[in-house]
Amino acid sequence: MTVNRLFSTAPLLISPKAFNIFNSLLPEYFNHVWNAVFVFQKYFLAPFGDAAVIHFYRQDQLQRRAGRGENSQVDAMYQVVPGNLPAAREKQSKEVKPLICTILLGLLLVIAAVVAWCYYTASLKKLNSFKIDQLELYKDGFFIKNTANMVLFEMGFKSAPIDLESCFQGEAGNEVNCTKSGEEKVDFFVKAFKPKDTITCYNIEWKTVVLNSVVEHCMYWADGHWYGGAETSTQHWPIKISGVMDPKPYITGDVYSIRDGFGGILERYWISSKSVAVRVNDSVPLHIGWNSSDKEAFCLHARYKDSPFQATTGQQPFVELSYQVCIGSDLKIIHRYMAKKHFRKPEITPSELMFRYPKWSTWALFKTEVNQDKVLRYAEKIKKYQFNFSHIEIDDQYSSSYGEFNFDPVKFPNASELLQKLRDDGFQVTLWVHPFVNYNSPSFIKGVENSYFVMDPSGRFPAFVEWWNGIAAVLDFTNPETTDWFQKKLEYLRSKYGIVSFKFDAGETSYLPAKFSTYKPLSDPSLFSKLYAKVAASYCMLAEVRVGYHTQNLPCFVRMIDRDSVWGYELGLKSLIPTVLTMGILGYPFILPDMIGGNVYPNKTDGLDEIPDRELYIRWLELSAFLPAMQFSIPPWLYDEEVLKIAHKFTQLRESLVMPLILRLAEETTKTGNPIIRPLWWIAPNDKVAQKVDTQFLIGDYLMVAPILEKGKEARDIYLPDGKWQSFNGDLFDKTPNLLTDFAVDLDEVAYFIRMI
Amino acid sequence: MTVNRLFSTAPLLISPKAFNIFNSLLPEYFNHVWNAVFVFQKYFLAPFGDAAVIHFYRQDQLQRRAGRGENSQVDAMYQVVPGNLPAAREKQSKEVKPLICTILLGLLLVIAAVVAWCYYTASLKKLNSFKIDQLELYKDGFFIKNTANMVLFEMGFKSAPIDLESCFQGEAGNEVNCTKSGEEKVDFFVKAFKPKDTITCYNIEWKTVVLNSVVEHCMYWADGHWYGGAETSTQHWPIKISGVMDPKPYITGDVYSIRDGFGGILERYWISSKSVAVRVNDSVPLHIGWNSSDKEAFCLHARYKDSPFQATTGQQPFVELSYQVCIGSDLKIIHRYMAKKHFRKPEITPSELMFRYPKWSTWALFKTEVNQDKVLRYAEKIKKYQFNFSHIEIDDQYSSSYGEFNFDPVKFPNASELLQKLRDDGFQVTLWVHPFVNYNSPSFIKGVENSYFVMDPSGRFPAFVEWWNGIAAVLDFTNPETTDWFQKKLEYLRSKYGIVSFKFDAGETSYLPAKFSTYKPLSDPSLFSKLYAKVAASYCMLAEVRVGYHTQNLPCFVRMIDRDSVWGYELGLKSLIPTVLTMGILGYPFILPDMIGGNVYPNKTDGLDEIPDRELYIRWLELSAFLPAMQFSIPPWLYDEEVLKIAHKFTQLRESLVMPLILRLAEETTKTGNPIIRPLWWIAPNDKVAQKVDTQFLIGDYLMVAPILEKGKEARDIYLPDGKWQSFNGDLFDKTPNLLTDFAVDLDEVAYFIRMI
Repeated sequence: MTVNRLFSTAPLLISPKAFNIFNSLLPEYFNHVWNAVFVFQKYFLAPFGDAAVIHFYRQDQLQRRAGRGENSQVDAMYQVVPGNLPAAREKQSKEVKPLICTILLGLLLVIAAVVAWCYYTASLKKLNSFKIDQLELYKDGFFIKNTANMVLFEMGFKSAPIDLESCFQGEAGNEVNCTKSGEEKVDFFVKAFKPKDTITCYNIEWKTVVLNSVVEHCMYWADGHWYGGAETSTQHWPIKISGVMDPKPYITGDVYSIRDGFGGILERYWISSKSVAVRVNDSVPLHIGWNSSDKEAFCLHARYKDSPFQATTGQQPFVELSYQVCIGSDLKIIHRYMAKKHFRKPEITPSELMFRYPKWSTWALFKTEVNQDKVLRYAEKIKKYQFNFSHIEIDDQYSSSYGEFNFDPVKFPNASELLQKLRDDGFQVTLWVHPFVNYNSPSFIKGVENSYFVMDPSGRFPAFVEWWNGIAAVLDFTNPETTDWFQKKLEYLRSKYGIVSFKFDAGETSYLPAKFSTYKPLSDPSLFSKLYAKVAASYCMLAEVRVGYHTQNLPCFVRMIDRDSVWGYELGLKSLIPTVLTMGILGYPFILPDMIGGNVYPNKTDGLDEIPDRELYIRWLELSAFLPAMQFSIPPWLYDEEVLKIAHKFTQLRESLVMPLILRLAEETTKTGNPIIRPLWWIAPNDKVAQKVDTQFLIGDYLMVAPILEKGKEARDIYLPDGKWQSFNGDLFDKTPNLLTDFAVDLDEVAYFIRMI
Repeated sequence: MTVNRLFSTAPLLISPKAFNIFNSLLPEYFNHVWNAVFVFQKYFLAPFGDAAVIHFYRQDQLQRRAGRGENSQVDAMYQVVPGNLPAAREKQSKEVKPLICTILLGLLLVIAAVVAWCYYTASLKKLNSFKIDQLELYKDGFFIKNTANMVLFEMGFKSAPIDLESCFQGEAGNEVNCTKSGEEKVDFFVKAFKPKDTITCYNIEWKTVVLNSVVEHCMYWADGHWYGGAETSTQHWPIKISGVMDPKPYITGDVYSIRDGFGGILERYWISSKSVAVRVNDSVPLHIGWNSSDKEAFCLHARYKDSPFQATTGQQPFVELSYQVCIGSDLKIIHRYMAKKHFRKPEITPSELMFRYPKWSTWALFKTEVNQDKVLRYAEKIKKYQFNFSHIEIDDQYSSSYGEFNFDPVKFPNASELLQKLRDDGFQVTLWVHPFVNYNSPSFIKGVENSYFVMDPSGRFPAFVEWWNGIAAVLDFTNPETTDWFQKKLEYLRSKYGIVSFKFDAGETSYLPAKFSTYKPLSDPSLFSKLYAKVAASYCMLAEVRVGYHTQNLPCFVRMIDRDSVWGYELGLKSLIPTVLTMGILGYPFILPDMIGGNVYPNKTDGLDEIPDRELYIRWLELSAFLPAMQFSIPPWLYDEEVLKIAHKFTQLRESLVMPLILRLAEETTKTGNPIIRPLWWIAPNDKVAQKVDTQFLIGDYLMVAPILEKGKEARDIYLPDGKWQSFNGDLFDKTPNLLTDFAVDLDEVAYFIRMI
């Protein structure tokens, strides 16, 4: 190979005109061992247009090539009179050589200059960005700036840049369409519109046409505070992201079991303190990831590969990442606009009882050891200690097996009698239910026979899952017959025992099998949670669910996931306000906090006694009294007289002070969709301090609550946003905004402030 | 780019000596616009050893490169005094140039010639084949030839050729090892050895070291007849392959349900009429495919990808295809050698009763409608019509659910009484069992709790399968506790009711889930069948199994898969002899033919009546009388007096003529492993006609049976191999080999011949 390459230079492309010049001049010049051959090669010309190929060959090599028949591919060969070696030497004209050389060189330099110039001017024409209203689209992402040119929002196209040369802007200037990303075809557009004077929205859509594509756009959150998204185990307000998280399916999950997952209450909605809101479309197979060290990149990631999302039946699994970004004049305005547009409002309110009086559950107190006698004695004590009640909820293991939805005759030898007795004493009773049928339940056989269950991917066999009570099949609520069967079971409990409603536990997609099929395909697994919540809706007056996905319209109390009996942000007391605020901003106003004092789960609660830490219990109780519902399980009388007294104080305060307000707000939310429990920024949207407060909240616009959430503390800092505030003990504060430091709050007190008009 | 390339030629590698010559000569020569630069580039030198790189540069280009600092990578640059252009021109020595040029050219031509010569001689050294005893190894496969240079066996390497240049032959000449196939590393060897004077064997092993490899070697069967392999639904003797079949897992399956699969009796063993036997090693993840139009290619295909075979735990899933090919002096000699080496002999014989008297099953007669009364009346009739019996087998649905292994109290209100009555009448009773526990059986719960079942791939949940009686989990016999539980169930039936043994139904891998995990991993799924058969072994005296995989040692009767009540080769009467012969050659001598007349399955039997076609029934009965066991379900008395008479005639003939012989042969096979029922070639291994006969068989070496297998026929052709034969009606035939055409055989006759010594 090396030997052969000596004989020819690299081929040179020249234009036909240049070829003619070469043709006339070079024979004179190349007259020693080197000979030049100019070859028009048709198969080369095609891509290069009007050009010829010039090879420099040694004369002997030329002869060899001819001998090997290599020129057969060459259409026409112009061999420039090389003659043989000695003859050529005689023809040589010494004087003309440097001249020709110089001319040639000059020519080539001119060509190079022209080419460079063309490139330069072409690059000048290249577009660097498009401007669509306040949005500036670059190849790697876009900015939205305010009129003062300050960046409100930044989004990066992480998976691939857009090819701006493939874009064209609509005549009105409010729309840009692009068709390429690198060499790949895409269908990308940005469209701006102004639904209101104070609001500008951008619809962004990126559609791929290649299978197994991944599209990832990352928002940069470093500059503002963000709210919304999903319930999480460690809940902060505003959202805190830390470290790097690879994109994972954005679907409902049980964050008690899977601590780093997304919770059972989840929407594709985030808003920022810079008055920007993002809503991702339902058609997106959405995964969320983040990288806190990359300007707090919070990434929307769409894919079907290795994902529980499935393309809608009959459609190609082409990934789409589409979302709406809206900016408004302030945080409250933009939230109210988005909520109105993307969430349905509750149709009616749940039962007034649920707001007004505490619910009493058997769970944290008795766990699965519940039985007829214990329930009876529990009810007696509630009355004995003169507490009010909305209802008693009989929780886990009243039944003989999971899937039976009936009283275990051993533990409840006379359930009818019990229920009658409770009714006589004024108690309404609800029962704990769930979407599972354990393998050892007689209903399991019925379910297999009738295909009531979520099936394995083949669709032939029920798929098993493991939940906290063993191995079960999951009721497939996409099948109307399943729903019918389940509802008949519940109706039986209602008609036979007078059960008024149910606690619908679980329902998260994390209790679906890893791979499954359903009667009707679920393109988005979280729709399972939605269906389950809809089943609950018929019993909503006193019912509770713990999943929420596009179900803001249901008049159900939504319970936050089980709390541990701890103080912190991870499912502890401190997580309550962030969770309540998040649920509210996601459109769920009827919030049932978990049991007062937490669930006292072994292994999860440090230094566990039989009951939660006394101080934790009191602070939890005090906070709960100001929330839309209040739930006891561990009763105050297990402590002492003081705790009992505090409990009575706050259940009474709730009834006198809090309830009139909350009931009005509950009624109002069916018209406005506004949360009952609101963040401070609701009344101070541009107050940078208010935007960060996660230990205070508003009930409506006029009652602000600042409970103690720290162990051993009888004072706290309290932030008063702009306004005139009267404290719970009558003091007036009108120099606001202001941070009251070390504001004294005794063990039997909650600091609350009324905002005076 | 193109412009730049004009300035330099391709670099030329030269040796240091050549460099020196260039160095002294070229400055004189390259004296116009071209200048030469010789560059030692350390980073180039490494791969090329002692060489230098020479670039031809234009003077101006050289200066540019220097300006851009491009020579920084160059360790030392020897620039050969080019001077500037005009100066160089003056130095030119016109006379010496052509001389140098010629010398150079000459030099290069010499180099080229030397290189060409080296290539030529190297190619001469290339090996075309290796000879290892009678085996000739080529890159694409191997032949085995006999001493007359006739091809006995041909194998093609379909997946990839071997690189013969990577092979080396052991000094003794009996072994070749190769290390490459194409560019891929493999570990391949062929080794010859002579276990006996009359036998030569070759061990062939192809091991890959790349994941997800596939190795395929195809035998070409066009030239001979082949026997062995597996039970199939359409069974021929010798094996017939037709069309193209993509490789599929060579594992046990229910060929009643999956008609084109491999059956429940299966070994990795084939022998040909050319006295060649092939046994594939157990370590091979074996798939079998074929292409009848490619010289009847029968392909051994090894892979783990998309396969139920799993690499042994802790080992890399590197595919191995290894097998032994042996040639012998004749078909019988080679088979006996292979059987002795690769199959274990039965340790003892099953109960004499099973050979001697018919077994009576409830299945074909009552199907799942069996009950206490029907069994009782069946037994009464057997006695009434004076038939003998080994036992009554109570088949499917004596139990209330699949998994209970106990009498359904509704269908068998007093099972103990029934069993007592039967025992009093001399009947032993066996029960039908299977490895399934249906989801609706109480045992299902017990099984899930105790992990008795084959699990899904996660190992967390039992995996469901669908069998002919619904949805079930499968008992995992790799778990000793499962086996223990199952055996306790059977022991209970023995001790409580005096059940003597069982019909172990199913057991094929086709009833395992598509993906599964077991207590102990099963690298080869068919080991499940083996384990199941081993469970049966404790009950083998009167038991039957229908799977056989490496279980020739068990003293169990092995039943061929259910037959349809038809005449043909697809599970009909004609399939019986090929199946019996195949089972025998695979080492299973204790063969239980299916029920006389077939199973009368609706949809599978043309023109189905309540009972099989009368003539079919008679011919089936006659054939069965000469087989190792005889099984009634549809009883002869359902027809007429003549059928009854024929039944009596043949059960008596069996007892008087056939049994003494079969019992002796059964005893003998525990020592020799020889089949009881033998193909004609057993006594005429080189008889090309005998090699093809599939409607006659030998019992031992001296009794040949030629039943009528065609509807409406009372005569048939009968082939008599070399020997002196006396027909069933006393005629002597000694002009043999001979084909008796249209030999008369009445409806109540079976043609049989005794070979006279």
